[in-house]
This record gives sequence, C-alpha cells and structure tokens, in this order.
Amino acid sequence: MLSKNKVLKTLFDKHAKALSAYEGLSVEELEAGINAGTMVMLGNPNHPNLEPIMIGQPARVKVNANIGTSPLTHCLDSEKNKIKACVEVGADTIMDLSISGDLDSIRRTMIASWHKPIGTVPMYAVGQQILDKDMPISSMDPEMLFKEVEKQAEQGVDYMTLHCGITRKGAQFGDDTDPKYGRVMGIVSRGGSMLARWMLDNDKENPLLVNYDRLLEICLKHNVTISLGDALRPGGGDDAGDAAQIEEAITLGQLVRRSREAGVQTMIEGPGHVRMHQIASNIQIIKQLTYNAPIYVLGPLTMDSAAGHDHIAGAIGGALGVQAGVDFLCYLTPAEHLALPNVDDVMAGVIASKIAAQAGELALGRKHAVERENAMNKARKALDWDGMTKAALDPQAVIARRAPHKDEEVCAMCGKFCAVKMLNDRRKH
Amino acid sequence: MLSKNKVLKTLFDKHAKALSAYEGLSVEELEAGINAGTMVMLGNPNHPNLEPIMIGQPARVKVNANIGTSPLTHCLDSEKNKIKACVEVGADTIMDLSISGDLDSIRRTMIASWHKPIGTVPMYAVGQQILDKDMPISSMDPEMLFKEVEKQAEQGVDYMTLHCGITRKGAQFGDDTDPKYGRVMGIVSRGGSMLARWMLDNDKENPLLVNYDRLLEICLKHNVTISLGDALRPGGGDDAGDAAQIEEAITLGQLVRRSREAGVQTMIEGPGHVRMHQIASNIQIIKQLTYNAPIYVLGPLTMDSAAGHDHIAGAIGGALGVQAGVDFLCYLTPAEHLALPNVDDVMAGVIASKIAAQAGELALGRKHAVERENAMNKARKALDWDGMTKAALDPQAVIARRAPHKDEEVCAMCGKFCAVKMLNDRRKH
Repeated sequence: MLSKNKVLKTLFDKHAKALSAYEGLSVEELEAGINAGTMVMLGNPNHPNLEPIMIGQPARVKVNANIGTSPLTHCLDSEKNKIKACVEVGADTIMDLSISGDLDSIRRTMIASWHKPIGTVPMYAVGQQILDKDMPISSMDPEMLFKEVEKQAEQGVDYMTLHCGITRKGAQFGDDTDPKYGRVMGIVSRGGSMLARWMLDNDKENPLLVNYDRLLEICLKHNVTISLGDALRPGGGDDAGDAAQIEEAITLGQLVRRSREAGVQTMIEGPGHVRMHQIASNIQIIKQLTYNAPIYVLGPLTMDSAAGHDHIAGAIGGALGVQAGVDFLCYLTPAEHLALPNVDDVMAGVIASKIAAQAGELALGRKHAVERENAMNKARKALDWDGMTKAALDPQAVIARRAPHKDEEVCAMCGKFCAVKMLNDRRKH
Repeated sequence: MLSKNKVLKTLFDKHAKALSAYEGLSVEELEAGINAGTMVMLGNPNHPNLEPIMIGQPARVKVNANIGTSPLTHCLDSEKNKIKACVEVGADTIMDLSISGDLDSIRRTMIASWHKPIGTVPMYAVGQQILDKDMPISSMDPEMLFKEVEKQAEQGVDYMTLHCGITRKGAQFGDDTDPKYGRVMGIVSRGGSMLARWMLDNDKENPLLVNYDRLLEICLKHNVTISLGDALRPGGGDDAGDAAQIEEAITLGQLVRRSREAGVQTMIEGPGHVRMHQIASNIQIIKQLTYNAPIYVLGPLTMDSAAGHDHIAGAIGGALGVQAGVDFLCYLTPAEHLALPNVDDVMAGVIASKIAAQAGELALGRKHAVERENAMNKARKALDWDGMTKAALDPQAVIARRAPHKDEEVCAMCGKFCAVKMLNDRRKH
C-alpha cells in the first residue's frame, strides 16, 4: 500500500511517530497494518491543519459523529455548534451529511473548522441537485457523481462513503417484497436507495461499480479513503444477514482487492439493525468476505423499537461489534429515525459510542482501556474525586453531578452510608 | 412451594388468570415455575391494591427502579414524583432505599401510592437508627434487624433484600487488601458493608445467616419474597467472579434450598461490575450455584469509567445478562456513583433497562419482544407514525421528537431524501 500510494507514504512518514505513541503500537506495526489493508490512515493532504488518525484494531476503536443539514432542519450555526460539541466530547471524526442549503459552502466551513478527518457521501450533493428541481433520481447523469467525488477530494475530504457494492441484482434483492423471501424494511440507506432507484428505473448497472477504476484514480491522487457503503444494510432485525446484505458484502470484498492493487485505502461500512445473537456472526462474515478491511458500523442497532433512545440500543450493539472485530463506530443519537440531532443529541451520541468502544475494548483486554479502569477504581476506592473525574470517559458529567456536593468526602447517593467509607474507616482506626 | 405457602396459594389463585394472559404462559406453566422455585410471584397481601407480578424467565424480564431519600438529598415530594415517573414510563417494581428522614412514614407513603410490588432493604432502617446517633455500626443489636423485617412485612413490603449470604470468611475475602489476591474495590454493597463491618469488628458470624429460620418464619407469614442480597458483588471489573463473590453465591444457594423447604420464595441478587466477556459465565455460575432461582441484577456494569452515563454501561451488561438468563433488571441511572437520581434520571434509568430487556429477549426469540419489532417495522416501512409511536418502547419520546414536524410524511432527519419513501414511491407509480 505505502509503496503504491505516495501521498499516503509522505503523510505517514510525517505523522507515524505521534500515531505510534497515541496507539501504543510500534511504527512497524502501523506500517504493516496499512500495507496489509487491515488498517487505514485517514488523511487527505488538502485538508488544512489535519491530524490524521488510524482505523483498524488493535489501533484504538474510533468514533464518528454524523452532522449536517436536512431539508426540514437547516441551520449552519447549529451545525457549527455541533462541531464544537464534537471537539469537546472527543469524537474522532465527523461526517458532513448535509442535504440542504449551499452544500459546497457548508462543507468548506466544516473542513476548515475540524482538524481531524472528515467524511462525506458525495451522492447527497448529486441527489440534491436533482431532487431540489423535483426531477426523478432516474434522470441522474452518472458523470455528476465522478465530478462531485473529484471536487470534494480537492476540497480536502478525507474519506467518502461510496455505495459501489450495490448491484442491480442487489437492488432487486433489497426491494423484493415477496412475503416469503423479501425484506421487511427494504433499502434504508439514503445514498443506496437513490442508486437502487436509478438502477431499477433505468435497468442499468451501478455506475460506481462499473467505473470503479475511475474512482480509484481520483482517490489515489489525494489519499481519499474509500468507505465502501453498505447500501443494503439491514433496516430491521429480520433483514440482518440476508441475501441482499451478503451479496453486497461479496462485491465489496472484490472491490477491496482492486483498491489494494491500486494503492487506495478502503474501509467497509457495516450494519445496521442486527439483533444481539447475530452480531458476532454478521461482523465476522463481513470481515472474512472483505479480507479484514477495517469495518465501520452504524450501531449495530440491537432492536427496532427504541426510537428516541437509539443511542442506547446502538451502544449495546456497538460494544458487541467491537468485541467481534469492529474498528470504527458511527454514532447513533437519540434523534435517529425521528429528527435531525441537535447539539445535545450529538454529545449523547458520541458518549454512547465511546462507552460502547470502552466496553468492547475492555472485553478484548486492550491496554489503554484497562488502564482507564485501573485509574478509576484506584480513585474510587480512595474517594478521590479529582482522580475519578480524570479517569472518567466524560469528566464534565462527573463535575456537573458533583457540583452541589463537591466538598463532601462521599457522594450524594449514599452520604454517610457509603460502603467504601464503611470499610476504609475500619482500616484507618 | 404452593402447598407449603398458603398466603401465596391464595394470591396465586386470585391472580393466575390475569398473569397467565400477560405473560403468554399457561397457568400450569406459572404454577410449575413457582413450585420449582425458578419463578417467584411477588406479592404481600398486606400491600393494598396490589397487582402481583411474576419474576423468572420465560416470564417477561422485569425492571426495578430504586428510589428513596439520602442524607444529602432528601425531599419526599421529589420521591413521590419519582413514583409517578415510574408509573408513566412503566417500571415493574420499585425499591424504597431511603436512608434519611422518617423512614416509616416514607415507606407507608410509597406502599400506598405504588400498586405493583415494592422492595426494601431493612438493614437501612436499622443502620439509620445507629449512624444518625453517630454510633458505630458494630454496636448494632441483631434483634433490631428481625424486628424491622417483621414490621416491614406487616406494612406490606413485597420483597426484601437481606444480605444473609455474607459470612465472616466472605467479609474477610471482601475486605482483603493483599495486592496479589485482594479486591480492587472491596465491598460496595451499602447493607453488606454494614454487616461486614459488624462481623469484622465483633468477630461474630452474620446474624441473618445464623438465624435464617427466623427470617423464613416471618416471610412465610406474609409471602415476603427474600431477595438474597449480594453483599460481595464486584464493585469493579477486576473483582468479578472472585472468591468473595463465589463463596457468597454458594452460601446463597444453600439458603435457597432451605427457603424452598420452608415454602418461602427467594430471588438471588447479582452483580455488579462485570466486563462483557465475563457476563455469561458469571450469570451462569450463579444460576447453577443457586439452583436456578430467579436472578435480579444491578447492571451488570460493563465498565467502571462511565460515571454520569452508567445507565448505558449498565444497559450493555443488562442485555447480555438477560441473554444469559437474568430474570429481573435493577436499573442504573445516570446519577449512579455520583448523586441521588432525580426524576429525569429515574425515567432514563427505567428506559435504559427496558431497552436492555428488549435486546436480550429478542436475542432469545421471546414472542412478545419479536411482536413489538414486527409492529414497529410494519409501521416504519409504511411511514405510519402512529403505528411507530404505539410500537415504540417509549411512545412519549417519539411524540416529543415528532412534534415540530408531526404533519410531515417523512421525518426531519432525511426529509425528501427518505430511503423508505424513495423505494415505496417507485412501487406506487
């Protein structure tokens, strides 16, 4: 990989030492991961003041926050505040999923104000040009898509979701309504549904698949990492692991091979709605079919009925996913399925994903995760509130909760009934 | 069990039909579960207007909310509002864990205003009488404990946490500070720490264990279910499954046998802080050692560093716990380890536990859980917002999120980019 992708090589040489220190892995281990394609280094040199990151276990599991406008809720200031919230709460990446307003200007603003990697879904900008004119998506000229990818790569987008793996056959699987074999939820990917509709209406193959080499050429030039979208991810627990999902994963695996040949980094996007007992097998089969490329999941959502609290249903799945090999968690917020997330939702979503990552990495015995717990427990046993605050995944939450009683030795739940104090005091006397 | 416990038999005969309908299990199945001790029916006839419930899979997994005063946060009105919140959000039981104020009066108020089962920890009332006088817990006369249990049974408490299983040896295990073998967090159970201190200071055995027959006699009279407390539950992930926890579980198992002989219903309280990869084994060994008595867990908390968000860390563990056999979830709120929960925390805690239960029961294929998902997905695919609201675990959250855009066909996240609509419209045309 590094020998074929000069832009990546230059970037890696510049940042390898810092990344090695942060990840607790040697430079050689990072290099080997990148070369094998089991790790990617997100970073487009066109992104000013960029701090690249590594994705791919045993590098730390990362958390992405989706932000951006929508037709019914569109306010650039609010999106800027979401970026600030992402900085405060420690998201690793953001994706600009805007679909309303001047998308170029919004994207430029976001790239300029966010110094870690940023991702996009170029299909949205193309979709907007068509849907805003009340034209059918079937009228899309595929040329628009490639131009959009090229433009965004030049703007400094570090990774792009490209739904290259949904085939015409896959679109039929996904849209199949046969009650015996078809899907319960059909196609729930925004970008994927547009491409599916285009293919079905025009009876043509996916242009991103047909002209994949063209994408590779653009992405290689700027070290844009291709996040191979899962247009056919299950949108309900019943659809997990079905023919539509797996047929797409097989195609994605073949695209991973072609990307590696070309020196272009790829990640695989994963489910979606998957019940607990199927998460490990679902993640493992995707990993196998896609040659252990880093996997980037939305959830997985362990149930469909938690609307209003999908960050929790997703944290359960995310934790199980990390334990099964997931490398990168896309957050879900309490607004999912219902509305555009606000600033509070963004914070809740990032924290929930960080909790999922920590739970999963603890189960895997990752050093940085275990060290955090050790620090917390040492402080907790000593009733050392500053120590607990520092060790907590969300120090601000601890400070806020403690505020009314911050000078007390014990907490306001138990007061003098504190169990830790009960035994500590015995030893003191 | 039913032949030995006449109070239970009378109560069961009265409610069996309604419980059978609610649980989707035949009266004979419930009866068999109660007789085997793998199910308990919570209900003390002294509790006015009581609606008893069943605990024990395959009965639905239930959710408990801990409420009650503490020395630093003490307001009866606020506790009453928490009860209303529990009704609104659908908790199955509450526990009054008050440790400050006029405990008898608080308890009577709670019993009168909550019609599903209510639990307590009688040790708290005894502890209060001693600690409020600045006396050491070692001065406790065990007689106080038995009198308190008797009084609360007469008041109508349906189940009581009694830490009968912590032995003098267990207290030593729990308080062991040897860095090679001792615990990281020691003893974190409020009631358990008082009994441990009493035993260690007085060099005597646990009076609740020594005089267990006396407890059985009181509980049999009013069908009080004994919730055998886990005084030695792990308070940090490192302590899970250690000698202290397992030695106590063995004792609890023997007490389960004695209870069954006497016709007294028992549940087992479980961890606590347990990392994901140890949850299934931890739950399974407790189930085995305690002869498949219903297990009632606090969490399990999959990490120690999620302070401020322990309801999420606990939902991950609760879901895995249910999948491994947990019957009854005690909620954790965002306030855990930091402060007394407020009304919002209570609601967040109940919802998180209900999500955990649904995730776990879905993984087990439970009919009622699957039916909810089917209803949600049918409505979601049809963009039927009323149907989604009805099927959601928290309908109020859906209504609140939808309010600003409630007349739109689609939601405010995607607007006209709605993937479901993209394919549905194709079929319409």
